[in-house]
Amino acid sequence: MKKLINKPEDFVRESLEGMALAHPDLIKIHLDPNFVYRADAPVQGKVAVISGGGSGHEPMHGGFVGKGMLDAACPGEVFTSPTPDQMFEAAKAVHGGAGVLFIVKNYTGDVMNFEMAAELAHTEGIPVQNILIDDDVAVKDSLYTAGRRGTGTTVLAEKICGAAAEAGYDLKQVADLCRRVNLNGRCMGMALTSCTVPAKGTPTFELGDDEMEIGIGIHGEPGRERMKIKSADEITEMLALAIIEDPAYTRTVREWDMEKGEWVEVELTDEPFREGDQVIAMVNSMGGTPVAELYVVYRKLHEICEKKGLKIVRNLVGAYITSLEMQGVSITLLRVDDEMLRFWDAPVHTPALRWGM
Amino acid sequence: MKKLINKPEDFVRESLEGMALAHPDLIKIHLDPNFVYRADAPVQGKVAVISGGGSGHEPMHGGFVGKGMLDAACPGEVFTSPTPDQMFEAAKAVHGGAGVLFIVKNYTGDVMNFEMAAELAHTEGIPVQNILIDDDVAVKDSLYTAGRRGTGTTVLAEKICGAAAEAGYDLKQVADLCRRVNLNGRCMGMALTSCTVPAKGTPTFELGDDEMEIGIGIHGEPGRERMKIKSADEITEMLALAIIEDPAYTRTVREWDMEKGEWVEVELTDEPFREGDQVIAMVNSMGGTPVAELYVVYRKLHEICEKKGLKIVRNLVGAYITSLEMQGVSITLLRVDDEMLRFWDAPVHTPALRWGM
Repeated sequence: MKKLINKPEDFVRESLEGMALAHPDLIKIHLDPNFVYRADAPVQGKVAVISGGGSGHEPMHGGFVGKGMLDAACPGEVFTSPTPDQMFEAAKAVHGGAGVLFIVKNYTGDVMNFEMAAELAHTEGIPVQNILIDDDVAVKDSLYTAGRRGTGTTVLAEKICGAAAEAGYDLKQVADLCRRVNLNGRCMGMALTSCTVPAKGTPTFELGDDEMEIGIGIHGEPGRERMKIKSADEITEMLALAIIEDPAYTRTVREWDMEKGEWVEVELTDEPFREGDQVIAMVNSMGGTPVAELYVVYRKLHEICEKKGLKIVRNLVGAYITSLEMQGVSITLLRVDDEMLRFWDAPVHTPALRWGM
Repeated sequence: MKKLINKPEDFVRESLEGMALAHPDLIKIHLDPNFVYRADAPVQGKVAVISGGGSGHEPMHGGFVGKGMLDAACPGEVFTSPTPDQMFEAAKAVHGGAGVLFIVKNYTGDVMNFEMAAELAHTEGIPVQNILIDDDVAVKDSLYTAGRRGTGTTVLAEKICGAAAEAGYDLKQVADLCRRVNLNGRCMGMALTSCTVPAKGTPTFELGDDEMEIGIGIHGEPGRERMKIKSADEITEMLALAIIEDPAYTRTVREWDMEKGEWVEVELTDEPFREGDQVIAMVNSMGGTPVAELYVVYRKLHEICEKKGLKIVRNLVGAYITSLEMQGVSITLLRVDDEMLRFWDAPVHTPALRWGM
C-alpha cells in the first residue's frame, strides 16, 4: 500500500493532529469523539454550520472549518459515517445561541446519524436543522444511498451558508438557503483509477489499464458505465451534458419541523439548467489528478457552457472533495442568483479555501 | 496512460488555455512562444519577476502569476526547459521600466536558456538579473544538473521576491533578497510512485510495489536511496534530518554584473540550520498524494523541528511543486528573518496562492 501513513488505525487522528498544528489560528480539534472546530468557537449569536462524513475526502470537511465557512466538521473513519455523538458534541461546542445547521451528504449512514444527533441536540435545547445534499446526477440509487448521492455541491453549500451565517442570517434563513443551493447544484464524477482504503490495503475496485468509470461515487460506488478511456474533451462532454441536460428531479427528504417538534417529509423538485443561467463551476480532482489536467477539463467545460448558454461567473479548480488518491475528476455546476453570489464572494479563511482575508 | 488529456502534444497549450479561461482577472497567456503573464502587465515602475521551467510541476510556475508574486512564467514542454525566446518575449511583455528578475531552478537547460534570454534582453536595454535556486539537499550532482537541483525553495522565493517587487524594491534589492532566500532554504523529496510523461506514455522509472525512493528529483531523477516503504513518521524523519543537519554548502554561480556588463562567477556558501532559527515549512505533494497524508507528515515534521529548536512560524501544506501525478512528498524549510516574513505575509492573489485579498 503506497501511502504516507503510519498505522492505518491512526491515520484519521494523526491527520487531524497535523492539521491542527498547521492551522492553530483557524481550528482546534477534539478527539474521542473526533471533530474539528473553529478556534474562536462558539461565535455568540451566529448560526453554527456543521458538516461531516467519512474521512478520505479531504480537504472536505475539516479543511473548510474557519472564518466564513464551517464552525465544525465531524470526520468518521475513512469512507465511514461519523457517529451521532461526534455531531452532538460538536454542536454543543460551537453553538452560539442561534442554532445549528447540519449540512448532510446523502448517504444512508450519514443521514441517520445526523438525525440522531439532531434529536440529541434538541433534548439539550439546541435548535438544529438538517439539510440534505443530493446533487450527484450519475445514478438514482447507489451502494450506500437511497436516491442521489451528495457530492460537489456540498463544498459550495458550505461556503455560501457559512457566509450567510456570518452575515447574521437566522437558522431558518440559512437552512432555506442551503436547501436552495442543493436544488440548484448538480455534480457528476469519473475515475481513471481506484483508491485504496488504508484499513483494507487493497484497491476498492479494479479498473483495467485502458478503462475508466463514468459516474463513479466518491467511495468508489459503481457509476453509470465502465468504458475504454476517452480523451479529456470527450470525458468532459459526458459529464457536463449529463449535468446540464439532467431533467427535473423530485425527492422526498426528512426535515425537522421546529413548530411541530417532529420530522416531516418534504417533497422537493429542482429545475433543469436553462439558457441564460449564471453558474459557479467547480472542476474537482478526485485526489490524484494534477491541476494541469483539471485545467484541460475546465477549458472544454467553458466551451460547452458557452454553447449551452450557461455563463460561468465564478469557478473553483482544484482538489476539494476527493476519494483519497483516486485519479479522476468531478464537475459541479451551481445555478446562482445574486444572493448566493454575494455569499460566495464573501471573505473566507479556512485551511483549504481562502480569499478576502 | 491514465490521464485527463487530449493529444499529448496539445497538453501544455490546452492546460494554459484552461487556466486563462478560469482566471481572466489575474492572468493572460501568450502562445508561440508560450508564457503566462499578469493581466495588468506591465506594471510601470515595478521590478518584473519571471520564472519558468518544464511543465508538469503545476501549479508552479504559471499558477503563481498574479498580484504580489510572478509577473510571468514560461512553461516548457513537460519536464523540458523553456526556450530563450519564451523568457525574452515574456520579459518584453512585462517589463515596467525597473528591470527583470529571472528566478531560475538549477537544471542545466534552464540555466543556459535563462542566460541566453538575459543576454537577448540586455541587447534591448532591459536590465535582467538571474538568480539561481539550488536547494535540494538530496544529491550533489544529478541527471540534468551540475550541483544541487532547484526545488521547493523556488515557491517561497517567488512569493517573497514578488512581494518585495510589489513593495517597490529595485532590481538589485530584489535579486539580493532572492539570493538570500535561496541560501536559507533547503528541500528534499521522496516518491512512492513514478509519474508518466504524456509524450512518452510509460512510467519514467519503475518502483516495486513495496519500494520508495528517497531524495527523488522532480523529474524522477535518481535520489539518494531506493528502499522498502517505511512509515510516514520514518519518511518524514529521513527528509527532515537530511535538511536540518545538512552542512554548509558552497557553490559557484554565474550572475550578471550590471556595472561590468558581463557574467561573473560568484561563490556562495549557506549556513546550516541552528537552534533558534525561525522557519517557513512547506509540506508539498508530488502531485498524487492527498492532503490528508501531507498533514500526517506535517505532524511529525512539527515534532522534529521542535526537538531541533527550529520554530515553524508559517507553513504551507499542499501541492505546489509537483511531478505530474507522482505520489510522494517533499519538505522545504526556509530560515526567515523579519524582512522575508513581512514579504511572505504580504497580500497575494494568483491562481494557486491567495491571501490578504
